[in-house]
Parts: sequence; structure tokens; C-alpha cells
Amino acid sequence: MKALQDRIKQDGNILTKGVLKVDSFITHQVDPELMEKIGQEFARKFRTQQITKVVTLESSGIAPALYTAQALGVPMIFARKAKSLTMDEELLTSEVYSFTKQITSQISISKKFLHQEDRVLIIDDFLANGQAAKGLAALCQQAGATVCGIGILIEKSFQPGRALLESMELPVYSLARIASLENQQIDFLGDDE
Amino acid sequence: MKALQDRIKQDGNILTKGVLKVDSFITHQVDPELMEKIGQEFARKFRTQQITKVVTLESSGIAPALYTAQALGVPMIFARKAKSLTMDEELLTSEVYSFTKQITSQISISKKFLHQEDRVLIIDDFLANGQAAKGLAALCQQAGATVCGIGILIEKSFQPGRALLESMELPVYSLARIASLENQQIDFLGDDE
Repeated sequence: MKALQDRIKQDGNILTKGVLKVDSFITHQVDPELMEKIGQEFARKFRTQQITKVVTLESSGIAPALYTAQALGVPMIFARKAKSLTMDEELLTSEVYSFTKQITSQISISKKFLHQEDRVLIIDDFLANGQAAKGLAALCQQAGATVCGIGILIEKSFQPGRALLESMELPVYSLARIASLENQQIDFLGDDE
Repeated sequence: MKALQDRIKQDGNILTKGVLKVDSFITHQVDPELMEKIGQEFARKFRTQQITKVVTLESSGIAPALYTAQALGVPMIFARKAKSLTMDEELLTSEVYSFTKQITSQISISKKFLHQEDRVLIIDDFLANGQAAKGLAALCQQAGATVCGIGILIEKSFQPGRALLESMELPVYSLARIASLENQQIDFLGDDE
């Protein structure tokens, strides 16, 4: 998606160790207009899949997931990283290992919001090792729901996330695929389709 | 705001101890159409205030803050409850005490996103004791920015949050003001204006 790739080139910052920082328009300060365009693009891509729920993980996934859900005319659910005080009911839970933080955290969604008949589109901001998307897919599968696809804003294609998800037969659609962050330069792969 | 009050009556759940649970349309599963209407209403209310940034706290405030920012044509910033790995720069920080959880947590925003010339609208989902809004206002004031108002989806008017914020000369605009949750019944106050 050209608008996202252009914005990454313009405002993305490469930190040491190949971390791409997009906190001026996605992960901390958020550009609503760009997020709406991203939501419309995911909706266009998955329009024929009869999606019934868009699922993401708090917090950076919420903005693009919200506009995607709105464009598809369905609710959005954000999985929680910590159990909320008012989450008194039964939960779908799964564990997500973070290679960067080197910790395992539990994520959860209330059972009452995902059911066997649901057709889910998972949205997340980054795809690196694929652990967050894998954990979200596990929550959906616990509910017996069908995961129709995974929409990603920024894929680090030099990391193994896409291969992991595709090996689980989860179709991945990434709007910006980064081949390399070496030499303080952002190289994109060609478009995903 | 009638649409929100009707939805609270229809789908809100009163837990023991007077906690109102709105996890089917705001705090866990989110209704994008309702959030857009809420954003438009906050934008209408604060349209003349020359707002330059909408600020909220992750995660439940993000959806209504995003649509408010979009309707006002400005960026949205969500304060973080935990320091992100890629937040390497200087931070505005403040402490928020949670009466329900009985813990103090630190919230933060990168200094580079709030400046002296900024005119900020703070958005949050609930107002009870006012600690979250007070903490967000403190971040803005550290940056020298002007807090023009605080937009709240659901105010528990039987708790002291509004009085605290108004004593700090922070104008509060709440879309649903709850007088009481007693006897398993939701009683609203009249409209805020």
C-alpha cells in the first residue's frame, strides 16, 4: 500500500538492532486518516470472506482494526494483555512469547464474544516472529471460529513470522513488507498481490 | 447523548459493588459506528477551541479518541501505561492511582509529541475518581500545553471525579452521566448542556 510505505519512508525511524519505530503515526501518536485508508484496504481485500469479527491485540492494533471493522460493518474485539477487573466470565486465553522483551505474556478474550460460527479477520501493526498473530489465532480456534486471514500493517520479511503463519494455513496480507533495515535504510519488497 | 445512554441501558451490565460493565460495545468488543458518533459529538462540542491534539490513555480510550481526532482533523496520542521498548527518548510521565485496583501506575507520553503551543482535548471512557484524567492533564501541563477540555463517555456522577477536575479548572463534558447504579438499575442525570 503506497500511502503506508511512503509514510514509513518519510516518518519511520530505524533504531539500532534493526527496530523500526513508527510512533509518530501508528504506535503512540496516531494518524486517523491513514488508519482509515488502511482499514478500507483490509476491508477491500477480505470483502468476499464474510468476516463477522475483526480481532486485534491492545494497544497499537486497535486503530487500524477499528476502521477495518467499520468498513466491513462488523464489531472489533481487542484481546487484553492483562486480565481486567471486570472480566469475571470465562476467558479464551493463550500465551504470547516476545523475542524482543524475552517474556511470555497471557492474552485473553471473553468467551462470549467469539463463537463457532464466527469468521475472523486478525489485524496487527507488526509481523516479525508471528507470535502475537499466532496467539490471537489460537484464541479464535479455541472458540471454534474460523480465522479467514491476518492483515498486517508492517511485515519484517527478514524475520520468520510469515512462514510460521502460512505453515498454519493462515493467509497473511501485509501492506508494507520490509526486506531489510540494514545500513539505516528501509528496503521494501514488492506488493503482496 | 441519547444513542450512548440507550446503548448503556440495553447492553450495560451492573456488577456487584456498583461497577458498570460495557465490554460488549466499548471496553473489549467495540462498536465502530457508535464510536464514530461519539467522536463527532465531542468534535461538535469542542469545535471552536482550536484543538491541535486529542490525548487518551490506552486501551479503552483509543477508539473514541481516534474518531474525535479524525472529526477535528488532528492527531490522536495514547499515553502508555508501560514504557515501550522503543520509547528511548525523553518522556512526560505522571502517576495514576487506581482506587479499584489499589495500585499506582506510571503513564507516559513522548515529549516530542506535545508542545507549548498545543491545545489538547483529553478523551476517556470512564470518569469515576478522576485520577486518569488528572494524570493525563498533568502530562499536558508538563509540556506547557493547554488542556481545553475533558470528554468522557460515561461519568459516574456519584463519585468525585468531576468535582476534582472542575476544581482544577478543567471543563468536563460527559455523554452519559450516571446518578446511581443502585438496585441493579441505571439512573441517568439530565444532559450535560
